[in-house]
Amino acid sequence: MIRIKLIISYDGTNYCGWQKQPNGITIEEVLNKALKDLLNEDVEVIGASRTDSGVHALGNVAVFDTESKIKPERFAYALNVRLPEDIRIVSSCEVPLDFHPRYTDSIKTYEYKIYNKTINNPLLRLYSNFIYVNLDVDKMRKAAGYLVGEHDFKAFCSIRTSAKTTVRTIYSLDVDRQDDLITIRISGNGFLYNMVRIIVGTLVSVGRGKIPPEKMKDILESKDRKNASPTALARGLCLVGIEYK
Amino acid sequence: MIRIKLIISYDGTNYCGWQKQPNGITIEEVLNKALKDLLNEDVEVIGASRTDSGVHALGNVAVFDTESKIKPERFAYALNVRLPEDIRIVSSCEVPLDFHPRYTDSIKTYEYKIYNKTINNPLLRLYSNFIYVNLDVDKMRKAAGYLVGEHDFKAFCSIRTSAKTTVRTIYSLDVDRQDDLITIRISGNGFLYNMVRIIVGTLVSVGRGKIPPEKMKDILESKDRKNASPTALARGLCLVGIEYK
Repeated sequence: MIRIKLIISYDGTNYCGWQKQPNGITIEEVLNKALKDLLNEDVEVIGASRTDSGVHALGNVAVFDTESKIKPERFAYALNVRLPEDIRIVSSCEVPLDFHPRYTDSIKTYEYKIYNKTINNPLLRLYSNFIYVNLDVDKMRKAAGYLVGEHDFKAFCSIRTSAKTTVRTIYSLDVDRQDDLITIRISGNGFLYNMVRIIVGTLVSVGRGKIPPEKMKDILESKDRKNASPTALARGLCLVGIEYK
Repeated sequence: MIRIKLIISYDGTNYCGWQKQPNGITIEEVLNKALKDLLNEDVEVIGASRTDSGVHALGNVAVFDTESKIKPERFAYALNVRLPEDIRIVSSCEVPLDFHPRYTDSIKTYEYKIYNKTINNPLLRLYSNFIYVNLDVDKMRKAAGYLVGEHDFKAFCSIRTSAKTTVRTIYSLDVDRQDDLITIRISGNGFLYNMVRIIVGTLVSVGRGKIPPEKMKDILESKDRKNASPTALARGLCLVGIEYK
């Protein structure tokens, strides 16, 4: 038996997120079906990041075990012909049998895109959050600075979390504007349920002038979800990649 | 009566092009319906560029005449609330009653995007043409140079054209590569039916090494459609804008 690691990119628009669930089709489900079709084995992938409904990925990671004699690198091609156009396996390789994509230390990087103009751009609408009020990127950058480092992010976590600890480390949190497109890029050792989208929602409140940048520190220290802003829309979020140590 | 000019952007993925036709829904049709809903008049827009099925636009132009007292600049907002998310009016203004978007001299700019990697990117798939064979951009650039200027572009025009003359002027034709994304940007005083996509198809043949760059001159001078390459896919093409003199 060998363990295969897949790097997966997908357009989350038409999926109910990663994880199997009764209400609609998910990435995990479609992957399992393609694997069953290819291998004639009942294979269940284990995903690194169980992205929410509508969230995109350029580099999510999943593993599965198989008795197949297919060369590890060939799985990407063999699966892509069995997958819809909005899911692509970027690469496949063999990993040790004890490699677990969620329990192995890693750096995850997400990008959140905001199209910030008075009228939306139809060509970006599926991959960005449209906000017509002008956002002050300098203020957002200043507020972002308070979140970098190891902190208890309880205030930026959905109350539906089941995490044992809400302490996480953010390595970098950059806010960049190119014309009308704002990109918020965040890297960390792990993210709580909805954490990236709540951070983005709160940075947007800062950018709109509703919250002064310095207030970010108080919100963080309060450890109270009520003090942060509403969760930003899923469509702007993309899991860029996961780097294992 | 006043004439209103609209600048329109749209994601062409779900439309059978600009012009009204029996087989499916078109941009023109959806615009006319939104105008009828807003004005309670039977208004018919006249479009500048009758883009093909699947082609996108950031700045197509259309005009219509109305007796309405709505302020010209307000039409953009009033129409956007009546239009689907994949069509947006970027701006609206009054123009002279004799302004015709097709018969007035203009510079049109198109961009064609090619995602050039071994495996496609799901987030770019609707707005680019995926080509997995590595393309030589330097060769494409050299070939493109032969097309700039005033020429008879009969070889790069669908035989289904009804144009009186096939002479057109290309002001610029640039081929640029940023990582895996190739952008071909072309500006001219007008384009024949399928002309941009046939030019792109032929540049791709050059990039693949099937046609030497110098051959572009012979193809142009032959005035024979059979010597150029097949029409490139619609999804990579976007009408960026139209500048009137």
